[in-house]
Formats: sequence, structure tokens, C-alpha cells
Amino acid sequence: MKGTKVSVIGLGAMGSALAKAFISKGAHVTVWNRNTEKVQAMVAKGATAAASAEDAIAASSLTVICVSDYKTADKILKNKAVENTLSGRTLVQLSTGTPKESREAAAWAQQHGAVLLNGDILAWPRQVGTDAATITFSGNEKAYNTHATTLKLLGSTSFLGEEPGQSSVLFAAVLAYLAGSWIGFVHGALIAENEGFPPEKFGELIHSVSPMLAEESKHMGRVIDQNKFSDPESTVDTTGHDLHLLVQHSREAGISSELPEFAASLFQRAIDAGYGKEEHAAIIKVLRKVS
Amino acid sequence: MKGTKVSVIGLGAMGSALAKAFISKGAHVTVWNRNTEKVQAMVAKGATAAASAEDAIAASSLTVICVSDYKTADKILKNKAVENTLSGRTLVQLSTGTPKESREAAAWAQQHGAVLLNGDILAWPRQVGTDAATITFSGNEKAYNTHATTLKLLGSTSFLGEEPGQSSVLFAAVLAYLAGSWIGFVHGALIAENEGFPPEKFGELIHSVSPMLAEESKHMGRVIDQNKFSDPESTVDTTGHDLHLLVQHSREAGISSELPEFAASLFQRAIDAGYGKEEHAAIIKVLRKVS
Repeated sequence: MKGTKVSVIGLGAMGSALAKAFISKGAHVTVWNRNTEKVQAMVAKGATAAASAEDAIAASSLTVICVSDYKTADKILKNKAVENTLSGRTLVQLSTGTPKESREAAAWAQQHGAVLLNGDILAWPRQVGTDAATITFSGNEKAYNTHATTLKLLGSTSFLGEEPGQSSVLFAAVLAYLAGSWIGFVHGALIAENEGFPPEKFGELIHSVSPMLAEESKHMGRVIDQNKFSDPESTVDTTGHDLHLLVQHSREAGISSELPEFAASLFQRAIDAGYGKEEHAAIIKVLRKVS
Repeated sequence: MKGTKVSVIGLGAMGSALAKAFISKGAHVTVWNRNTEKVQAMVAKGATAAASAEDAIAASSLTVICVSDYKTADKILKNKAVENTLSGRTLVQLSTGTPKESREAAAWAQQHGAVLLNGDILAWPRQVGTDAATITFSGNEKAYNTHATTLKLLGSTSFLGEEPGQSSVLFAAVLAYLAGSWIGFVHGALIAENEGFPPEKFGELIHSVSPMLAEESKHMGRVIDQNKFSDPESTVDTTGHDLHLLVQHSREAGISSELPEFAASLFQRAIDAGYGKEEHAAIIKVLRKVS
């Protein structure tokens, strides 16, 4: 990839990982960050420092932005100096945002003669630059195709469609899954450690049953998609009942009962709404209605 | 397994699956259930009906009990007629209970000259009788060894130790993990369907990244076990920030924001407690303290 030019704005853990991946694959990388220490660290690895965000954007036809959120990105980008530099450029926005923010960012770029692609990284920083990093994009397909070779230096990329918010939608959905799983795992580990069962062994057990859990996710997605909740392996009633016991268990054990209570009350609402004989994915029906 | 005698008390979805597994593998199975329709269905498959719970227990040296919980089991078992039949018998309690209930049940059986093994089924009813059903046991090891051949007709069994509550501990820990994952999955599917991304495709995506998620569980267990939260791939700060965006996203989308709010507030408490720079498994530290 000699000759490829790319700029990176934002050098936190993820932004630095992106810049390093580009550098290590031979691209000419221009970087900018408010904290100049982080810029110097990247210059030591072979990057060129830009004096300002607009200089970074001017230096390459493609600029990747990775800061903590769109509000932070707006502080850097929404000013005359940057907007005057944008014409004909492509920005790839890898900061975390909501679908609405992604749509607004794409519209703002277009106003200034630029193209903005929204992307989301489903990976840890250390995985960036390897196939283990999944990076999804949405927005202008022509711009994606033009820069796909460069973007693929970062990991396994995929294009989700022209609607600019789709990538943020998927990231939010995956984050919701992760958040639920993490809290569930941590509560399980809490039960284990409290009863003298090593959390490490608990983690190995969850690891060993994970192919079955993966099948379960596929199954739940299909059930929700086809609206077929009526052929349950296990019902909302049964699980709701077990979750009440889990609340009791946590109280008996003297540990937090917050997750069990949250889960039990959600299942109870689904039971009260008449979904007790359906399978547990039917709890989605009470979450669709905002109270 | 011709000649093996076993009784089954409780013929709900799981109890019926247990009885059917024993019958199909050639055991002589005696069944009892309060609802006689369910008994007749099992007799049609080759079981012998008992007139009462004590008759069922008297018919075999091993009786498996699978009702909705220990309270229901107590209503069936804690009476003179049953207690007078118990001497020398082994009961296997497969109903869902808390570790405390499991310990109490084992003590009650011992008082009456019997042995009670606590077991938990990590499987759907249709998997019972196959290797896909994991069944864990704890309590009297000698009784487990005596009946292991019969119990293995039900699935992949494992013995966790003589402490009678261990099996319930593990079941509760796995249920906590499942509950968190299910709610997380459902919220993700809700985001997807709300934005025109098919939940089925979301399920397939989670399925495809599941090996990475399984590794994550193993890693979190190890981190918690070794109390080493200080070498994070991703911090409580970063995830907490993303979860606040997830709350914002859910509100913008007009769907329930309950899971994101629950998760965001938990991460915020961990940040407020000073764990922001640690890795996300550090949220366990705020759950250990009961408020």
C-alpha cells in the first residue's frame, strides 16, 4: 500500500490503533489530536503531524475520525476552517454515535461538498489491522468502493447500505447484547465466588456451552423476525418462575439482586400481559411499548 | 438397561422428558403426578402409574423428582406417608431451587434415612436423553456413583462435589448469564427491527461473532478470579460512555430504554466508585456491595 495517503483525527486507544495499522501496512499517515503528546508518539512510529484538523483533512483525500463521540467530533469539525477544506474530501466517521447523529453528520458533510461514511468497529484496539476486527460501514456506496482497499487495511470490512445510520444501528444492537451478557456474566461470577466456586471455572463453563448459546441467538432472531413465539422449548412462565428463585437466591446469599430483579420484573410483565405460554423471546413485546 | 427401575415424580415438560428418556432406554419406569392426564400419557408410552407419591418412591430404589420448585416438592414430600417410605431410598431432586433450599432438602432426607442428590438440568426438554443435555449433581458422592449409570441415561452428567448446594449455585450462575444475554439480545433485536434491519440477520451476526464472545467469558472469569482488572482492552469509562449513547439512541428511536438505562447506571456507579480505568468486569465490585 505504498503511496496510499490517509489522515487520522483522534489518537485515543482506538484512534492510535487505527493509525498504527495504516502505518504498519505502508500507508503515508497524517495525524492530528488535541493532545500533542499522543501526536508525538505516533510521529515516532512514522506518522506526519498536522498542525490542525483542517491541515490533516487537506493532507489526504481520505480522513478517518475516531474520537469518543459525535459531540466531540463536532467541536473539532464544525467550524469555518474545516468546512472550507472539505470540498471533494471523504471523511470516515468511526466515533460512536446514534443513528440520528450519523444521519446528521452525513448531511452536514454533503452541505460542504464532502462525503461522510459512518463506520463502527466491532473489535478491541489490539485486533485492529487483523481479520478479527469487524468494521461495518454505511452511507455513500461510491465513496466506500473508492476507499475500500485502504479501509480493508483496518480489518474485515462490510458495507451495510446507503442509509447512513445503519452502521450505528448495528453497533447499538451489538452493544445492547454485550451489555446484557456482561452484566449476566458478572452476576453469575458473583454467585460463583460467593459460594466458593471459582469464577474462572464458571467462565470456562460458559465458554464450553457457547456453541449452544450461539444457536440460541440465531433461533431467537428467527422467532422475532417471523413473529412465531408459540412453539416454545421453554416458556416465559417457566423462566419467570426460575428468575424469581434467582432473586430469592441472591438475597439469601447477601449479594446484589439487581440483575435478577430487573430480569424477573421484565418476565413478570410479559406474564401479566398474557405471554406466559410463549417462548422467552416474547419479552420483546413488552419492550416495544414505551411506558 | 433392562431391569433398571426408576420412579419419576412430576410430569411437566421437563419431568415428562425425563420419564420418556428412561423408558426409551429400556428402564422400568414408575410415574406419579397430581394431574392424572399426564400420568396416562406416560403410561401409554410404557410407564407404570403409581397411586401416590409414596407408592412411586416405594417402587424403585431411585426416584427422580422434577416439579416447578422446592416449595411444590415440599407439598408432595413433607408428610408422614412419604417420610415413612424413605428409609434406604435415593431421591434425585431436579427441581429448580436455591443453594439454601438444596441444603435443607438434603438434611431433611437424611433425617428420614434417605439420601437426596441435588441436580440441575442445563438443557431444553427435547435435549434430555442426548449428550446435548448437561446435568450437574451435588451431594452424597456414594449415592451418585451407585446410580450414575441410570442418571447417564438422561444426558452428560457431572458430579460437582459433596456440598449439596453446588449444583444449584452453578444453575443460578448460568441462569443469571442467560437472563442477561436474553434481555441484551432482545433489546438488540428491538433496535434492529425498529430500523428496518431484520432481527434474523442480527441473530446470525451474533452467532458469527460468538467464538469471540466465548473467549470474552473465559477472559472475564479469569480476570475476576485473579482480581486483575488493571490491564483493560476496553475500560469501564469507555463502555459507560457508549452505554449513555445507547440510552440516547433508544430514546431517539422511541423504544424502551430500560436495559440501556440499567446498564448505563451500573457502569456509572462503577465509574463514580473509581473503577473507570479498569476493565469492564470491574463492575462486579459495585455488585458485591449490597446497597
